[in-house]
Amino acid sequence: MTLPILYNCPPSGNCYKVRLFAALTGIELDIQDVDLVAGAHKTAAFTALNPWQQVPVLQDGETVIWDSQAILVYLAEKYGKTDWWPADPATRAAVIEWLSVSVNEIQHGPADARLVKLFDYPLRYDDAVRNSQRTLKVIDQHLSTQKWLSADRPTIADCAAYPYLALAPEGDIALDPYPSLRRWIDNMEKLPGYVPVDH
Amino acid sequence: MTLPILYNCPPSGNCYKVRLFAALTGIELDIQDVDLVAGAHKTAAFTALNPWQQVPVLQDGETVIWDSQAILVYLAEKYGKTDWWPADPATRAAVIEWLSVSVNEIQHGPADARLVKLFDYPLRYDDAVRNSQRTLKVIDQHLSTQKWLSADRPTIADCAAYPYLALAPEGDIALDPYPSLRRWIDNMEKLPGYVPVDH
Repeated sequence: MTLPILYNCPPSGNCYKVRLFAALTGIELDIQDVDLVAGAHKTAAFTALNPWQQVPVLQDGETVIWDSQAILVYLAEKYGKTDWWPADPATRAAVIEWLSVSVNEIQHGPADARLVKLFDYPLRYDDAVRNSQRTLKVIDQHLSTQKWLSADRPTIADCAAYPYLALAPEGDIALDPYPSLRRWIDNMEKLPGYVPVDH
Repeated sequence: MTLPILYNCPPSGNCYKVRLFAALTGIELDIQDVDLVAGAHKTAAFTALNPWQQVPVLQDGETVIWDSQAILVYLAEKYGKTDWWPADPATRAAVIEWLSVSVNEIQHGPADARLVKLFDYPLRYDDAVRNSQRTLKVIDQHLSTQKWLSADRPTIADCAAYPYLALAPEGDIALDPYPSLRRWIDNMEKLPGYVPVDH
């Protein structure tokens, strides 16, 4: 059987979301690194896969998916990982809530801060810090009353949110003020199959 | 039967996503307006519903959902609107892709521009214009080869993306350069049950 191809960049938190979920659930992927420094994501061939010119992209036969949250849903559905993508409407909505937070509040908080500090991206660091403070406070409070973000067990929402939250210190965003968030990070790292980000 | 309550603000595009989908699918909601000008979204009672202190929020018995994309998924699942939330993994992933674009690229493009121009929000207008230009170009190109965003029929992704794209001119973002996007807007407005935004 041909494995789905993950077009990947090792330090990208968005790519790591997919690698982490695949590792936690035993899904095999054909991981192919894209040389962002050489501009490989801006070629016509790559732009045909993803008009946003970003990684990750998943290619599974004729199916091409260019958003990391959508890749998590696709893999969970295709491989029947229903524990990680529960079917009842209320829990599924709770998963989608935290996919949205991963795409917006977490991206424009700790992920943007890391892009500035680690990769010198031309983003506004002060905005990223302010967004991070609001976002981490809400998440810490949420995790003070429940062990996982969306259900009574880990779901794809935890896989989507974890990378840029755990990597926040790489953007000089300290996690010390957020004890419940730090406990959740510890719990993620204890899951069987857990893998750290690449650098 | 008690109807689900939608905590609403009439001109909010995020609230309009939900009202539009409900209108297109015949789902009845108990719409309750929240007085943002009076700060009703910052009270302890509202913050208990939504720690992000934003509308919309859907309350359906004990289920509370505070993200407009998650509300669309919840309503589609609960009311069995499977045409609007197709079950095959590839199409479902394509829906999630455009929910993510609605939360990030559309929000921080035309939606932010509208918040500045219409409601004097303290956001960076120049950034919103630049983000809009990139986003609208990609969307226009996508819609030059397919009638709807994610499938061969309208889905919740179209409902999530439509409000802030159609309302872009209210943020002084012209849609003239994007003919395929404008045709898609026309097609949305021809759907049976379509309702415009409130003001």
